[in-house]
Amino acid sequence: MRITLINPNTSRAMTAKIADAARGVAAPDVEIAAVCPADGEGPSAIESHYDEVRAAAAVVDLVERDQRAGGSDAYVIACFGDPGLDAARELVGVPVVGIAEAAMHVASLTGRTFGIVTTLSRTLGRADDLVQRYGFERARVAAYGTGIPVLELEDTGSAAFERIAGWCERVVREDGADAVVLGCAGMADLCARLTAVVGAPVVDGVAAAVGLASGMVRMAVGTSKRDEYAFPPQRETSGTSSAVSVIA
Amino acid sequence: MRITLINPNTSRAMTAKIADAARGVAAPDVEIAAVCPADGEGPSAIESHYDEVRAAAAVVDLVERDQRAGGSDAYVIACFGDPGLDAARELVGVPVVGIAEAAMHVASLTGRTFGIVTTLSRTLGRADDLVQRYGFERARVAAYGTGIPVLELEDTGSAAFERIAGWCERVVREDGADAVVLGCAGMADLCARLTAVVGAPVVDGVAAAVGLASGMVRMAVGTSKRDEYAFPPQRETSGTSSAVSVIA
Amino acid sequence: MRITLINPNTSRAMTAKIADAARGVAAPDVEIAAVCPADGEGPSAIESHYDEVRAAAAVVDLVERDQRAGGSDAYVIACFGDPGLDAARELVGVPVVGIAEAAMHVASLTGRTFGIVTTLSRTLGRADDLVQRYGFERARVAAYGTGIPVLELEDTGSAAFERIAGWCERVVREDGADAVVLGCAGMADLCARLTAVVGAPVVDGVAAAVGLASGMVRMAVGTSKRDEYAFPPQRETSGTSSAVSVIA
Amino acid sequence: MRITLINPNTSRAMTAKIADAARGVAAPDVEIAAVCPADGEGPSAIESHYDEVRAAAAVVDLVERDQRAGGSDAYVIACFGDPGLDAARELVGVPVVGIAEAAMHVASLTGRTFGIVTTLSRTLGRADDLVQRYGFERARVAAYGTGIPVLELEDTGSAAFERIAGWCERVVREDGADAVVLGCAGMADLCARLTAVVGAPVVDGVAAAVGLASGMVRMAVGTSKRDEYAFPPQRETSGTSSAVSVIA
Amino acid sequence: MRITLINPNTSRAMTAKIADAARGVAAPDVEIAAVCPADGEGPSAIESHYDEVRAAAAVVDLVERDQRAGGSDAYVIACFGDPGLDAARELVGVPVVGIAEAAMHVASLTGRTFGIVTTLSRTLGRADDLVQRYGFERARVAAYGTGIPVLELEDTGSAAFERIAGWCERVVREDGADAVVLGCAGMADLCARLTAVVGAPVVDGVAAAVGLASGMVRMAVGTSKRDEYAFPPQRETSGTSSAVSVIA
Amino acid sequence: MRITLINPNTSRAMTAKIADAARGVAAPDVEIAAVCPADGEGPSAIESHYDEVRAAAAVVDLVERDQRAGGSDAYVIACFGDPGLDAARELVGVPVVGIAEAAMHVASLTGRTFGIVTTLSRTLGRADDLVQRYGFERARVAAYGTGIPVLELEDTGSAAFERIAGWCERVVREDGADAVVLGCAGMADLCARLTAVVGAPVVDGVAAAVGLASGMVRMAVGTSKRDEYAFPPQRETSGTSSAVSVIA
Repeated sequence: MRITLINPNTSRAMTAKIADAARGVAAPDVEIAAVCPADGEGPSAIESHYDEVRAAAAVVDLVERDQRAGGSDAYVIACFGDPGLDAARELVGVPVVGIAEAAMHVASLTGRTFGIVTTLSRTLGRADDLVQRYGFERARVAAYGTGIPVLELEDTGSAAFERIAGWCERVVREDGADAVVLGCAGMADLCARLTAVVGAPVVDGVAAAVGLASGMVRMAVGTSKRDEYAFPPQRETSGTSSAVSVIA
Repeated sequence: MRITLINPNTSRAMTAKIADAARGVAAPDVEIAAVCPADGEGPSAIESHYDEVRAAAAVVDLVERDQRAGGSDAYVIACFGDPGLDAARELVGVPVVGIAEAAMHVASLTGRTFGIVTTLSRTLGRADDLVQRYGFERARVAAYGTGIPVLELEDTGSAAFERIAGWCERVVREDGADAVVLGCAGMADLCARLTAVVGAPVVDGVAAAVGLASGMVRMAVGTSKRDEYAFPPQRETSGTSSAVSVIA
Repeated sequence: MRITLINPNTSRAMTAKIADAARGVAAPDVEIAAVCPADGEGPSAIESHYDEVRAAAAVVDLVERDQRAGGSDAYVIACFGDPGLDAARELVGVPVVGIAEAAMHVASLTGRTFGIVTTLSRTLGRADDLVQRYGFERARVAAYGTGIPVLELEDTGSAAFERIAGWCERVVREDGADAVVLGCAGMADLCARLTAVVGAPVVDGVAAAVGLASGMVRMAVGTSKRDEYAFPPQRETSGTSSAVSVIA
Repeated sequence: MRITLINPNTSRAMTAKIADAARGVAAPDVEIAAVCPADGEGPSAIESHYDEVRAAAAVVDLVERDQRAGGSDAYVIACFGDPGLDAARELVGVPVVGIAEAAMHVASLTGRTFGIVTTLSRTLGRADDLVQRYGFERARVAAYGTGIPVLELEDTGSAAFERIAGWCERVVREDGADAVVLGCAGMADLCARLTAVVGAPVVDGVAAAVGLASGMVRMAVGTSKRDEYAFPPQRETSGTSSAVSVIA
Repeated sequence: MRITLINPNTSRAMTAKIADAARGVAAPDVEIAAVCPADGEGPSAIESHYDEVRAAAAVVDLVERDQRAGGSDAYVIACFGDPGLDAARELVGVPVVGIAEAAMHVASLTGRTFGIVTTLSRTLGRADDLVQRYGFERARVAAYGTGIPVLELEDTGSAAFERIAGWCERVVREDGADAVVLGCAGMADLCARLTAVVGAPVVDGVAAAVGLASGMVRMAVGTSKRDEYAFPPQRETSGTSSAVSVIA
Repeated sequence: MRITLINPNTSRAMTAKIADAARGVAAPDVEIAAVCPADGEGPSAIESHYDEVRAAAAVVDLVERDQRAGGSDAYVIACFGDPGLDAARELVGVPVVGIAEAAMHVASLTGRTFGIVTTLSRTLGRADDLVQRYGFERARVAAYGTGIPVLELEDTGSAAFERIAGWCERVVREDGADAVVLGCAGMADLCARLTAVVGAPVVDGVAAAVGLASGMVRMAVGTSKRDEYAFPPQRETSGTSSAVSVIA
């Protein structure tokens, strides 16, 4: 089975890190591929709704490209905002799993509650939208931004690690969460060390998504093509003109 | 005061229709501008999550373009999925109002409950996401797709009108809704006739959004720039290469 | 267009202040009238459920009186508990908007979340009922009483202003709200100064309601007369005896 | 122990019926008193929000009157809209129980779900507000108006009984409710016969409220006087002038 | 009328205490019986999900035993987790009331909100499940474990009382609850003293359940036998072998 | 890795069927063991709350027994009511997954909504409790009992299959669910055929749970031992006497 991970930002270093995290938890018969948009074809980091819009477009492009190249057995969208998830599901019949949803589903199986520790506080609104969408309002008892930008996670020296660990501990000790959800694919490599420090499950969405997606493939359960997620309507696209139309 | 309406699909006919609907309800001192993406720069219709992704990108582009040209006093996103709304809010300090949210807010003021009548049933999931996001779960007592594609609304002969009117009546008579929310900007020109037929308020989001946005401008209340909706982080975008990166 | 504002308490000074706030945001073609009950015909301030009961009766009386005098194009109930709102809607076909609902609807358009700053903490329960009724449970992230009685707002010296501003800042800085909703019509004149101090939208319900109501009038959308808000049943009222009946 | 039942409408026949229902379930040491407003001091029936406003005023008057006369050990508000409940709680330290809340609490103890059968469909909105307020959204699986006005219940011939029984059966058989809540104090005398016909618990709020209120008295648990339900602020009421004030 | 209280733990001292609390609030015509499992037939205290499983089994056994002995007019399950409540309801047609549900229902009638003060914090998850199940998510504004194990409540010296009182005061003063719900049957004897100290209603579930159950008996309202709570299916139980089956 | 499946009923045939379903989806490196209680040590089928109580006790016994025998890498509770799940989590540090939760989590990844098709309608209440507990209120759009008892599933001739298939189709075609959740472990062998007939994902919880549990083992994420799910308090159990204690 082949699972394609889509990192919607253009960081090759982060994409490699994500691939490593996925391979670390994949069953022996699971092959992992990881892609990201070319420079300029996607955001360099995803830290705002504006970036999300561009990330969603990149996800859709990469899924279409992979489909044209023969497709995969499942897709993982490796950005905590799950950008383009609904659209990607329309494009294929196989499973598509976002790392935010995957992390939350798995965290909810470790106990009753979890907290989220992410990068910038401005992304917490999007995280809350997803919590709501997936039904984890009661499970999610806390959510914090660490103030560490995504790209600073690329070389996480001890200062960043300490800061993230501090928030994880707060989530467990003060907010009483049973588990911690890491709110960025760029934290995937910190997960094991954080678990050791915190003494409670720390869940990386990349690993969680690989487990969920490969389980679905084994069950032969994919995306429902019933109505909402049926393949999108095809329309002839008329000729392109490069300027915006201003009417009246 | 100048309000810019953004139709995220490429139909100039629909954009003109939307501008007319807006002008019909604008106060004497409100100027309406209406824009849409050039052919090929946006979807020709918005009937899937896939279309939404492209629509959101078009909205962002058009807001940025208008800002560079001096900006407006408020923006209205004239597509019922409110695509790109959060991102557009990040880009400006003035009000940005989506027509789905506007229609729901106004409908909730006509009584207790409303129903939604829209184009294709596959878009109802997105509508439900918005209902949830805006807090109208209890107010929304029904939602139906008519099966009429967006572009067929451009020339709504009597058959389409009858079909839409039939669903509106069902919403009021059988589901007990106090009002009907029209789920597509392309229905804006039918609103008055539908109200007459149904005998209960039928709310067009374009008109509703113009009222809300102009009210906010008069109150000097815009978009909060506190944290989530602060201007998005600027990053140097590195050079562009045209191929997708495949890592490992 | 003529909008009648109903202040359900007997303070003429507050009624004049409310009228001023409304006129400050009304479009050129909107005429504002403001009424309040005569002394003894309504509560002097509205700071308890007991006061709410009397306020609701006063609202109903004033709407009936205005209807007999020819009626208005819309009504605004200018008390943050929205007393008598449902009953007033039954009495007319035109829009009726409460300032609590108006403030919450507008605040929710400035971002994702808001906090409420009001007079006495004992009124927070009623505010929460309205938050719930209107669907803003997720948007409302904080609500505080300042401890300042309604009538002390009539001459808001610097001490009261500082106190209110302090709570507004707390709502934005500590509770992370995108906007502040002022929980009393008597704070209408402080709104602009508070916005300047807080650096985030501060929403006065009187201004918000004028915008919403006038927008609805322009759209020709009034109160739904379908079932719940149909004109109330008329019954012959039998002769009056002045003593309470005690049965058995 | 003495419990005073307050029927907020002016029907002495209904008040007597309510007193009978209460006495039928009262423990040997519980004395029941029943009062209603004098003709013209309250609505003759309560079938609209407009009537609710007047009913709430009547409840408040009757509680104040009873307090001046020495007070009771508990109060029951015997109208399904629980009008004036919050205000009545402010006025006393003893328990105050509404029949809608009482019926819902007791019905929820008979199983998992209940349905409501009431008089006019226009009152269902108010019933839903109470369902929401008391936390029974999941328990309440159906609610129907029979179309029978309150005052027609005074002499419930077989036709009205059959109609009500039909709706009760529908609630149990088709909607799968474990119990039926009767939505009007005027149905109190039908409860036993309905139970026999339906074969599932049919709950009359008057009887339920007497049980709850007397239980609270025995436990020495009354109304919390902490903040929201503390005695309402006293203000000197200035002189009365009989005309409405029109400002500006 | 005879109400049987079932204490699912094996403490005879606590069972006697519970019986006393019940008799202190029972009407003159209500007879109270109290039972608990024999040593080894139930948990000695109920402080974990593991204990709950054994407690539920004990409740079911004791109800079946009482039914074989002629039955009671109502049952009260005197453990705050309401263990075995659904199963007990299946076994009888009379009312079965848990003390957690009873305490929450009564507390909600004293005002708007309550807080829970219980034994070990590890039981708060179960309490939250019940809050959710019974519909008190909005009413419940706080819940605390005191860290005092159940069996230490048997001789509550002043230290334990002070600790419990401290948490009760916190619930009222800092969390703004109108009432306190005691989260353990073993606290029943402290209720009056706590009320005096706290100055707000403190609700013991044993007393509350006796009131609710006896009220239901007087109303002739029992458990609905419609579908979910119908008597459980009878099956022939085949012979017993003492070892676990391991298949394949 | 070794996963132990616990079937809490005593049917060896069903246990064997469950083991087969699990092995059909397990990765090459996953070993499946399946156990059930000996005859008389658990219910023969689980179709009531009464059965659930006994099933929960059986689950706890079997987990303890397995722990004493060296333990497993993960446990799956193979009954749709997830009996004893919370207690089992207390007893171990490894993952414990119920098949109801597993099926719902996976179904929610196939689209937006699912419906449940189960055995007897009387079990739907328990299913709803779990839907609520796990956060799938919005995802779950329908739930039906087929009226087929659990043990009749052991030899599912064509009649039973047709009946189940009919309900699955209704869920997808009329209720608009994206997927179907099978509400009984005894339906595990029908899943593939049902998927083929229905044309939308049909999810068997046994297979889903194996995927989730093995994914968690690979991630080294187990049960949080923080507070609620810490190992249960140990108490000396005093000597056993066989009779119930009746106090006073």
